[in-house]
Parts: sequence; C-alpha cells; structure tokens
Amino acid sequence: MSDHVRARDLAERAADLDGADPLAPVRHRFALDDSVYLDGNSLGALSLGVLPRLADVVTHEWGQLRIRSWEESDWWTAPERIGDRIAPLIGAAPGQVVVADSTSVNLFKALVAAVRMVPEDRTEILVDAATFPTDGYIAGSAARLTGRTVRPVPAGEIAAAAGPRTAVALVNHVDYRTGRLHDLPGTTAALHAAGALAVWDLCHSAGALPVALDADGVDLAVGCTYKYLNGGPGAPAYLYVRRELQPRFDSPLPGWNSHADPFGMDPAYVPAEGAVRGRVGTPEILSMLALDAALDAWHGVSVPEVRAKSLRLTDFFLECVDALVPAGRVASVTPVPHAERGSQVSLRCADAGEVMPALVVRGVVGDFRRPDVLRFGFTPLYTRYTDAWRAARALADVLADLNEGNP
Amino acid sequence: MSDHVRARDLAERAADLDGADPLAPVRHRFALDDSVYLDGNSLGALSLGVLPRLADVVTHEWGQLRIRSWEESDWWTAPERIGDRIAPLIGAAPGQVVVADSTSVNLFKALVAAVRMVPEDRTEILVDAATFPTDGYIAGSAARLTGRTVRPVPAGEIAAAAGPRTAVALVNHVDYRTGRLHDLPGTTAALHAAGALAVWDLCHSAGALPVALDADGVDLAVGCTYKYLNGGPGAPAYLYVRRELQPRFDSPLPGWNSHADPFGMDPAYVPAEGAVRGRVGTPEILSMLALDAALDAWHGVSVPEVRAKSLRLTDFFLECVDALVPAGRVASVTPVPHAERGSQVSLRCADAGEVMPALVVRGVVGDFRRPDVLRFGFTPLYTRYTDAWRAARALADVLADLNEGNP
Repeated sequence: MSDHVRARDLAERAADLDGADPLAPVRHRFALDDSVYLDGNSLGALSLGVLPRLADVVTHEWGQLRIRSWEESDWWTAPERIGDRIAPLIGAAPGQVVVADSTSVNLFKALVAAVRMVPEDRTEILVDAATFPTDGYIAGSAARLTGRTVRPVPAGEIAAAAGPRTAVALVNHVDYRTGRLHDLPGTTAALHAAGALAVWDLCHSAGALPVALDADGVDLAVGCTYKYLNGGPGAPAYLYVRRELQPRFDSPLPGWNSHADPFGMDPAYVPAEGAVRGRVGTPEILSMLALDAALDAWHGVSVPEVRAKSLRLTDFFLECVDALVPAGRVASVTPVPHAERGSQVSLRCADAGEVMPALVVRGVVGDFRRPDVLRFGFTPLYTRYTDAWRAARALADVLADLNEGNP
Repeated sequence: MSDHVRARDLAERAADLDGADPLAPVRHRFALDDSVYLDGNSLGALSLGVLPRLADVVTHEWGQLRIRSWEESDWWTAPERIGDRIAPLIGAAPGQVVVADSTSVNLFKALVAAVRMVPEDRTEILVDAATFPTDGYIAGSAARLTGRTVRPVPAGEIAAAAGPRTAVALVNHVDYRTGRLHDLPGTTAALHAAGALAVWDLCHSAGALPVALDADGVDLAVGCTYKYLNGGPGAPAYLYVRRELQPRFDSPLPGWNSHADPFGMDPAYVPAEGAVRGRVGTPEILSMLALDAALDAWHGVSVPEVRAKSLRLTDFFLECVDALVPAGRVASVTPVPHAERGSQVSLRCADAGEVMPALVVRGVVGDFRRPDVLRFGFTPLYTRYTDAWRAARALADVLADLNEGNP
C-alpha cells in the first residue's frame, strides 16, 4: 500500500470515527476554529457560556450590586458551590471539594495538614520522583517547615517504598511529561496499609478519565481547573479533603475565609467545619465565576464515555504516527496499555524544539517539553479524530522538511 | 439657625465643593448610578474599561490565541508588569512589587521570609493587636511553623515594644475598623533601630493616601487591590519586597512561577531574582487583567490630590453628621487629626446593626462591623461631597425613625 493510499485510508477512518462519536456535538459548546488544538492539557479551550456570564458578573453583580453581591449573587459561597460541581468529575460526594488559590498553594495546605495528622515519628514525605517540579518544591517547603524530609521515589514504586516512617506520599495521577497513568487505588491502599496518607495531584487526569477519590479512599487531593476542565487561564485550583479527615485538617494558611464565623472578626482562629476549612483569603471572583460558567460544558457528559473516546483518540493518533512518520524518527514515551495511559501522547524526538514551532505554523498546536518531548493532549470534549490524523500528517511533513533542510 | 436652614446650607456647600473638585471628572471613569456608595473600602466600584478589556482577553487571547497568549499576550509577565503599575501608588521604584494570590497568602510569604532574614534568637513576631483577623491568624501560623511566638501589641505601641527579641512586626497602615492611620515612618524606623524588620499591610491605605515604602525604608508589604484600587471582587493582592532584601527572600511557597527557569522543569528549586521571587503558581489571569484595566482609572491622578480630597471629604462628612445627627446618638471612633486619619469614618452607634440596613434601603451603602460600628469609606476617585452630605442626612433620618419606632 502506498503512503498516499495509506494516508487517504486514515483520513477516511478519522471522518468515520468523528461521524460515530457520541461526544461530537459537545465540541460546539466551545469557541474553536478549524485548527488542530492538542494543547488542552495545558490550557483548555474557551466554552461559549463564559463571556456572557462574565459580562453579567462584571456589569450587574460588580457594577450595579457592588458589595451586596457577596450575599445576593452568592459570591461568598462560590468556592464550595463550584467545588461541589467539580466533585462528580473526581468521584467525590458533596462537601469535600473547595475551589481556591493555585494548585501549588493547595498542595502546601494538603501536605502540611497531612503531616499534622500522623504521629511525629513518621518523618518522611514521599514524592513522585518525576513530578511536575512545583510539587517537589512545595513538598520540600512543607518538609522544611514541619521538620520532615522529602524522599523522591518513582510513582510506581511508592507503594513498595511506604513504611513506618512515611507520613504521606504525594503522587501525580498522570505524569505531565509522559502521560503515564499511575495506579491510584493500589498506591493509596498500600500507603494506608503502611499507616501513611495519600495526597494525589489530579491536574492531568480530572476531566479526562474517571477518578474515584471517595471509592478509592484518597485522603487529600488537589488539581487545577484550566486543563481538561477548561476553566480559563490560571483558573483557581481545588482541594479535596476526605470527609472523615476534615475535623483534623489543620491548615497552615488559616485565613479569615475559613473561620467558623468570618464576620465575627474574632482575633482567635476557629476553623469552620467542612470543605470550607480549605479556604484562605478572598477568592478571585471573576476567575472563579468564569470557571463556574465553563463547567456548564459538562452538562450531560458521561465521564466513562470521555474515557472511552480519549483512549480511542490516543490509539488512533499512535496508529497514524506509526503509519505516517518514518520508523525511528520519533518514539512514544506514553504507555501502550490503556490502564497506564492518560489522555496525552508524548513523543520523544531529538529535534522536538524545532519541530513544535513548525507544527504550530501548520496550525497544529501541542507543547514542547525540554529537552526532547513533543506533547499532544487529547481533550475528548472537543478533539476530533480528524485532528489526530491531521496532527500526525503535519508531523510527518515537518519531519520530512527538516530532514531535507527545509524548516 | 433651624435644622432645615442648616441642611440647605450644607447641601449648597456640598454642591460648591463638588463644583470645585479637580478630581470630579474622574468619577466618569466608573460605572456609578446616583446612589451613595461609601463602601469602596470594601469593594471598589467598576471602572468602565474593565468589561471591554475582559471581553478581548476572553474572546481573542483565550478563545483564539489560547496557549500562545502566555507569551504573545504577555500573560506570563503580568504579575510583575501590573506590580510595576501599582508601585507608584505605594512609593516603590519598579521591580519590587508582584501581583499574586490573596493578601493572606502574601502575608504568609512575607512573615516567614522575614523571620528567615533575622537571627534565630529573635523569637518574637509583633502583631498589631487590633489587626484585621486574618493577619493575626496567618502570623500565628508563620510563628508556629518557624518556632516563633506572636505577641499582640497596639499599633501605636509597637515602636516602643520592639526589642532584641523582635524578629518582625506586622502592622496595618490604616486600621480597618476605626480608620486610624498609623505612623509608618516612625514605627518602621523604631523597628530598624531595634534590629527588627517591618511588614506593613496596606489594604486600607493604598490608593487613598500617599504611601512611601522606599523612602520610609519598609522591608516588606502586602495589600489588596479590590478596595481603593478598584480591581474587582477578590482581585489578586500584591507583595512588596524591598530590593536589597530580595536576594534573601526565602519563600515558604516556592512554586514553579518563581523559579529562575520555570520551563526548565528542574527538580531543584532555584529562585528567580527580583520581585518575581514572590510568585507561586499559575496566576488567575482573568482577575489579574481586570485589575490591569481597572488601574487605567488612575491615569493622570495625583496621589497628594487624592489625599487632599479624602481629608476634605471626611472632614465634611463629620461636620454634616455633627450638624444633622442628635448629639450623643453616634460617636466617631475615627481620629480627628489629619495625620491619624485614613479615608473612612467609623461611627459607633448602639443599634448599628439595624441602622445600616435601613441606610441601604435609602440608597446609602456603607458597612456594618460588629458589634456597633457604622463604617463609611470615601474613595476620592469617585465619591462626591454631595454623597457625604446625603449619607449624613439619611443617617439622621434613619436614627429619627428608629427613635420613633418606625424602622
């Protein structure tokens, strides 16, 4: 079969898959042109309800009601209310998720609070060795301030590494670089068996695949909302604190927003009950309510269906790359088994730093991660199979050009 | 002179003062109706440039450029860039202010970093005893995590209380409840003479009166942007770190945004130079850029002129209250001397909790602060002398009604 025939065949299959995709109509909830956007795992696309909602928040709630909106427009309760909207996407019953601050700041709260929940002779914080750097920095700071030490361990080995000295482990559900999906239930169970707590970072999983925090007994979790949840640039992050642990959640950032009586102006800190205990200062309402509007895009969407499409998309993309890109030019670092794959494909490519800008010029947007990784994120709510095919074809074209010295 | 004549006289004077007010045209930069809004010290009014800017950020920068906006729309540098726009309002040369997180979170950074800058035998953190509660809670947490203790001291006595055991003092420039302006230069100098550092909370002063952080030798400062800076509900706060101290600023929240090479994904934390060292995680861009647009309202505005109007407004309001409200019914807790007054007037009133809702019904919006304080904020950019007069008259009417049992 010639390359030309093979490419046409893939294009036809892509069109067929899109035609049969039950999530295809959801794409129309987003502001997307015909370019190939495979960077929703870095910044999710704009959903159409955001601007009208923000315009109303600015004009009416801020501009006209002004201070009264903290009550009348329910600004004050937004962090818990929106947390409860995220909860079903991460397998959490209501009352355990609060939207607040950045992922880094929430990680700090979660780790210090976790350390305070275990005996003092548990001196060690285990950290996923390949973690997104900020998780490691924050873990280092939490350890320094609580007199603990940090030990980096590959995520797959944390279950085995946990022992009587382990206070808590911080693990990424999906590795940001390789797209590897880690064993959340097994690792959590092993940590518990060792008497330690589990803190999960859901940045690269929530919204792309099923997460079952309650069912899997996770203690604390954090995640961002600007990737697969499409909350907008730098949209506020969330913190999950398992219900049974909430009374023992002793925050290192006890701001007035988490006080039992915030307007009592009590000089003594008395923490509120529930998820609200994870709040600190006044939330950034415009970003918060943009996220609220963005979550409307999930109306009627089933997470198992999202997962099924995600796997079909990444399978198909890998097949297209295999068919179109000369052997040996790129190598996938994303696991082949579905049980180990998130919703991205990362290709190792010696000249990745030249390849990605050339792809962008061709209307295919992914990420370059130093030193040599091309990262393509597949957001099942709006990515088409045709996008996967076009990205692979553009990649083949770019690599051919580079081989011939025509960047 | 009859009450009626007196009231007419005050109304005429208010109109004359408004007619002669050089800042009067600035009011047209805001979305304001004819009600009397004296709560800009809680949530500043909406300035007209915000919605068009946000619409462009959402539609074009997020919706069309998507991930490219971190570079092409200068999102990445927004925290420092907008910090440099706030700098002149607080007497700071460029490169020392970063916009990030909430006031509470910035306080935590500032206090822990300050403690780390002084010898370990300085075991005490002094805190303004009448502080806004969150400052005290956060100071308590910083002390607990760094093995220090907190000692509350009235702001006016901190200069005298500082000694060889003092690590740092956290003081409010203006007291949120009474509106008292504290002696920033004198207290800072006394702290330095004692070998301690000074952290100032500017929430209730920045934008309402001159602040001279550089000239007065302040070490670190924090402030919110949603009061006199009108940045929007929960708009991100700022952190000032004096240039000479920046190399020693050792943050307890070392996120990837403050790394010297954030996209190097280095597992080891190496802090960036400069104000950027105060950043943590990904900033909430929509709220951040709403603030950026809101700051346009300061174009051509002189802070000394703002201060002059602020004092004239609060003087006039006190005079109107004195003339219209029966003696003994309310008592101002705001200092009379200009050198001790911020930009609000707080009136103690036994039934304040009933009075404020009745004022709101009459279109006069201030704050009730438990147990018995009516708080009226005067934002010189948009508050009119007529507003001061109308507020005093409405207060007199409400008190008369309450006395007669007609709430």
